[in-house]
Amino acid sequence: MRPSPHSLLLVLLLSFQTVGAASGASGPVRNLMPVPAEAAFGAGRLPVTPAFSAHVAGCHDARVEPAVLRALRRLQGRTGIEFTTPVTPDASAASLVVECARAGGAVPSLADDESYEIEVTERQARLRATEGAGVLRGLETLLQLVEGDRAGAFIPAVRIDDRPRFRWRGLLIDAARHWMPVEVIKRNLDGMAAVKLNVLHWHLTEDQGFRVESRKYPKLHTLGSDGLFYTQDQIREVVAYAAARGIRVIPEFDMPGHVTSWLVGHPELAAAPGPYAIARTWGVFDAALDPTREEVYKLLDGFLGEMAAIFPDQYLHIGGDESNGKQWAANPSIQAFMKKQGLADAHALQAYFNRRLSAILRKHGKKMVGWDEILHPDLPKDIVVQSWRGQESLADSARQGYLGLLSNGYYLDLIETTARHYQVDPIPAGSALTPEEAARVLGGEACMWAEYVAPDTVDSRIWPRLGAIAERLWSPATVTDVPDMYRRLATLSVRLEELGLEHEKNVDMLLRRLAGSTDVGPLRTLVDAVEPVKGYQRGRLRPATQMMPLTRVVDAARADSLVGRHVAALVDELLADAPAFGSGRHELQDLFTRWRDIRPSIDVTIDQAAGLHEVRPLAESLAALGASGLQALSFLQARLSPPDDWRTAQLALSDRASQPAGEVVLAVSGPLRRLVVAAADVQALETMTPADWKARVEQLAAPPPQKR
Amino acid sequence: MRPSPHSLLLVLLLSFQTVGAASGASGPVRNLMPVPAEAAFGAGRLPVTPAFSAHVAGCHDARVEPAVLRALRRLQGRTGIEFTTPVTPDASAASLVVECARAGGAVPSLADDESYEIEVTERQARLRATEGAGVLRGLETLLQLVEGDRAGAFIPAVRIDDRPRFRWRGLLIDAARHWMPVEVIKRNLDGMAAVKLNVLHWHLTEDQGFRVESRKYPKLHTLGSDGLFYTQDQIREVVAYAAARGIRVIPEFDMPGHVTSWLVGHPELAAAPGPYAIARTWGVFDAALDPTREEVYKLLDGFLGEMAAIFPDQYLHIGGDESNGKQWAANPSIQAFMKKQGLADAHALQAYFNRRLSAILRKHGKKMVGWDEILHPDLPKDIVVQSWRGQESLADSARQGYLGLLSNGYYLDLIETTARHYQVDPIPAGSALTPEEAARVLGGEACMWAEYVAPDTVDSRIWPRLGAIAERLWSPATVTDVPDMYRRLATLSVRLEELGLEHEKNVDMLLRRLAGSTDVGPLRTLVDAVEPVKGYQRGRLRPATQMMPLTRVVDAARADSLVGRHVAALVDELLADAPAFGSGRHELQDLFTRWRDIRPSIDVTIDQAAGLHEVRPLAESLAALGASGLQALSFLQARLSPPDDWRTAQLALSDRASQPAGEVVLAVSGPLRRLVVAAADVQALETMTPADWKARVEQLAAPPPQKR
Repeated sequence: MRPSPHSLLLVLLLSFQTVGAASGASGPVRNLMPVPAEAAFGAGRLPVTPAFSAHVAGCHDARVEPAVLRALRRLQGRTGIEFTTPVTPDASAASLVVECARAGGAVPSLADDESYEIEVTERQARLRATEGAGVLRGLETLLQLVEGDRAGAFIPAVRIDDRPRFRWRGLLIDAARHWMPVEVIKRNLDGMAAVKLNVLHWHLTEDQGFRVESRKYPKLHTLGSDGLFYTQDQIREVVAYAAARGIRVIPEFDMPGHVTSWLVGHPELAAAPGPYAIARTWGVFDAALDPTREEVYKLLDGFLGEMAAIFPDQYLHIGGDESNGKQWAANPSIQAFMKKQGLADAHALQAYFNRRLSAILRKHGKKMVGWDEILHPDLPKDIVVQSWRGQESLADSARQGYLGLLSNGYYLDLIETTARHYQVDPIPAGSALTPEEAARVLGGEACMWAEYVAPDTVDSRIWPRLGAIAERLWSPATVTDVPDMYRRLATLSVRLEELGLEHEKNVDMLLRRLAGSTDVGPLRTLVDAVEPVKGYQRGRLRPATQMMPLTRVVDAARADSLVGRHVAALVDELLADAPAFGSGRHELQDLFTRWRDIRPSIDVTIDQAAGLHEVRPLAESLAALGASGLQALSFLQARLSPPDDWRTAQLALSDRASQPAGEVVLAVSGPLRRLVVAAADVQALETMTPADWKARVEQLAAPPPQKR
Repeated sequence: MRPSPHSLLLVLLLSFQTVGAASGASGPVRNLMPVPAEAAFGAGRLPVTPAFSAHVAGCHDARVEPAVLRALRRLQGRTGIEFTTPVTPDASAASLVVECARAGGAVPSLADDESYEIEVTERQARLRATEGAGVLRGLETLLQLVEGDRAGAFIPAVRIDDRPRFRWRGLLIDAARHWMPVEVIKRNLDGMAAVKLNVLHWHLTEDQGFRVESRKYPKLHTLGSDGLFYTQDQIREVVAYAAARGIRVIPEFDMPGHVTSWLVGHPELAAAPGPYAIARTWGVFDAALDPTREEVYKLLDGFLGEMAAIFPDQYLHIGGDESNGKQWAANPSIQAFMKKQGLADAHALQAYFNRRLSAILRKHGKKMVGWDEILHPDLPKDIVVQSWRGQESLADSARQGYLGLLSNGYYLDLIETTARHYQVDPIPAGSALTPEEAARVLGGEACMWAEYVAPDTVDSRIWPRLGAIAERLWSPATVTDVPDMYRRLATLSVRLEELGLEHEKNVDMLLRRLAGSTDVGPLRTLVDAVEPVKGYQRGRLRPATQMMPLTRVVDAARADSLVGRHVAALVDELLADAPAFGSGRHELQDLFTRWRDIRPSIDVTIDQAAGLHEVRPLAESLAALGASGLQALSFLQARLSPPDDWRTAQLALSDRASQPAGEVVLAVSGPLRRLVVAAADVQALETMTPADWKARVEQLAAPPPQKR
């Protein structure tokens, strides 16, 4: 008798190991990202061969079949195998059976049930979900499960029971400060779906550009966009593309501030007389709508009505941030209005504006989302407050009864490390919120503000780091193992390339363009060891305009240097191996030698390319750090104290090497500093335990505080 | 007194060296591709600094200003420099002054005057053209002139007087066998403009897909395209994009054969009863239009009228190739018609069809282009015959009074080397055509047939090889230096990346996808040493369908292996240095060592990725060739004859290494074979001159003929 799938599964389960929330998820979750709520791997495998086929049963969601076909296409592309019968009407013979109980809503919404279950045996993979949304999530998990070995491609036997921790998991893309063509949005939607994000927050208007076609008020986009705007057809196309992937699209029309581009065509909306020109620099501008004029609400009613018709989501974002009130303060008629209405200050006037706006939105069937500043007791409780200020501000609004989202800590434009983003939790451990209040924290959104990204570089600022933020928002709060996150992120990063994302391939491309040559080996060695300056330093170091070319080394450099992390880990390993100093030494030696010898070959590359001149100091520093590191290794190995002035000279070098050039900074000077301090202090090992000695080195080598 | 630009120029000219047609163009043409008709470089330079600016004078061509802005944008991107005042109203202060005498035609045409002159002095660059079309060509030359050194970016002082050799220089893109989205077409248009090509031949219908929206006959595209077609708006967008770059767009609607996809929605047009389904495999199919039915001409009149309205070019391509006549022969009513009309055979019937078609085209203001097969005395002399058959066929039609184009020898899908394409001339040296006949040879078109290309890989099949074909069609016939072509092509290839072309960056991307890892070093070493099988071998080795994933090693491998060429050159150098065998030895040793040691690391990569299993034999062969090469070097260096069986064993290995696996083949086994033969024959040097010995080795090592 042939065993039924269920009896087979029972047999397999005997050898299964459960991981996930319960076990802290640091166990063998293979390459899954985000980590599922529960996963138990078995010993068998389902082979992926030309005979692989899928069968969809009882899903009345029109998105499911195309999604299954896309998944099959990706599986074929990855394995190079053409499936002879990708879709089969025969459920029992299918390699993959997809089932869902009900269709779910017509458009993705906050109410979607995204849970799903997967059972893979040696005979068949089954994906079951309550709704189509769950199928979409489960298909991505299945694709992440695929592995290969000498016997071929396969899906390991596994049971997964998965559901999201937060309901709102988003990415903001600012398409206003720099224009992002439709294909950029689409490939990022594919990437979002791959890590189970479900909200695209599309920042469409800014001082620097009005990026959406308004048929009612065409001067808005024709005069406010340099011709770079989405047509309404394109918007519909993107919304449909997102919906097919279970992603909501929430447009943001930022007001009453950040509106310079609106005013180019409609200066009559402004709180101060025009004319206005599209802003070309960055920052907070004075331009603001005049909340005292009925024409403003008339236009907003018309425009938002138009937008409400093409954006089906229940929510619409009205920005509300950084309205500095200067134009309002300087306008006597606005001041008179405020007095008459009893509006004490700019915040009160903005709240008045938001109440009016709220009524307009309600009329068009939309609920309001806005940044922290919109929070005001007069507003209805169904609004969502998005916090750029932080977890405390978010908790405050939850306590006041408002729904909220966290974005502070998830600003991708600040070029933080992945680990740093990963550690930010919308409801941090030890939160004092009651369960009821905590339930008001809907989730979070990563923000890709676009002062310093162009279509060629935006993917590398979003990816792969967004994968870790997506995990924070989907996986159990207990999933916090940083090294395992980085391990899985590396696999994810490569897999994302099959969706057309350019975060990996454009790094070398930018270097080749700058060098004017395919021979970028030494340059790549340098760029692998640097990171762009973090926080808001870039704009401080070199004030930029919208016209600045974003094709420089700083634009090619990764936010989170793998080499930087690797050197830090190797130095840690080496120092932990005191007094033998064997562990990690060979690898460090190789690396330091490569750095030391990077010149003169990199000098030739730099000389020939004007765009590379600015990083010459970093090449010099890297060569010097390589030499310094090799010396430090020698002293440590010989347990020989260096001459007195050596330490001073090397630390001075390390300080110099910590200075940015061309708005990038070496990401390896910290570990080198520790190595130098350790070498200078190697004799202390005579009188201390290795552990005490290492702790002392760490303390002595603590880096000077850095301005962000 | 400040010298005038002209007196400065005179001074510079004293040191100028003229290159180009007159000197055979093997001289210092820097990085220009195509080589201009005349160029004379001087010693000075015009610096490219933040103060760089442009001024446009007297060009009444709306394309010129946007083109200048695009060029400035690329210049900024490449140098990382933001120009503070990119455009200036002050001609005397401008770094670049652009002038044209008259506007030229409203749409690009065969009559465009593409000539231009450039004068660069230390003060200013001047670009002068008769028409806007010449400005577009000259701007690309200017961008190719930009260089950099320790002092920064600059344009060298130069005088260029340039004009095309042929008026029709095209690229065919087959968007039918595999779908090519609009962005693929656009980035390739940018690449075409960069090498001064002026015709996009857009192959829009095939057995495998009907790729254009017909509003009159919507069943054509809705049922014949899997939903993958260009809307008429997209067609207009592409036509405008091309026109802005001085490129004509000629659509091809292939008929009466290659029409299976038409017949899915309109089986009544066929010469045999339906139903029809979109073809999924490759080759020549029987499906044909029925030339005896008036409904066919009625639909063609309607459809071509629709197309004539959105494609402004004077010419329209009706295909006409590979109509095998089988359906016609099997249809009694068609046979009766032929008898009645006195049409002797299928060729005569096709000529009848083409006469009818010709009248329809004339009605819609279009002239006909078609493949060799359309040639028939009954057709008017204003048609253009595109020759896939070859130069003889082309010369024949020129003698018969027809205009013609060469495509034979320019088929990019056959994966020939660049050198091979470069050597194909539409009017070869020694042509017997009279000047009047030769003038009928309008130029040529490279063809990118799409059986084995997808959007991710099509760029790497087109580029950079197309640059050399473009040079053949633009530059004087005397420009034939192959090594210098390859040198300039390498620079061009990198510059093309600034236009978004993906030929370079997708190679590693495909390897990472297959390997599932960023660690593709050894795999890259292997893939750099292989080429896809050439000619029509791929389909013979593995019959494919439209659904086959084009993500395999064969799709990542380059058409023209740089390593293959490099090893051949090094072996040549080494053998020419007999009996010392010093020249090139170290580099060969390094390379052979890397190959020999490629395992076991590449085995680990291959094991983990099912899609790489198929190339395991090549990895084994490369390792063996590396070992073999090292041995050969040792024997040569020691001038020591190897044991008797060594030669046999190594040649057997070389034969094995010449076998394809996964439809790729090692591109380095030829030079290795020469090295083995040389080593086995090293003692003959005792009795021969080194030159005679080398000639003997070459002869002994001649490879066995290869099936194509």
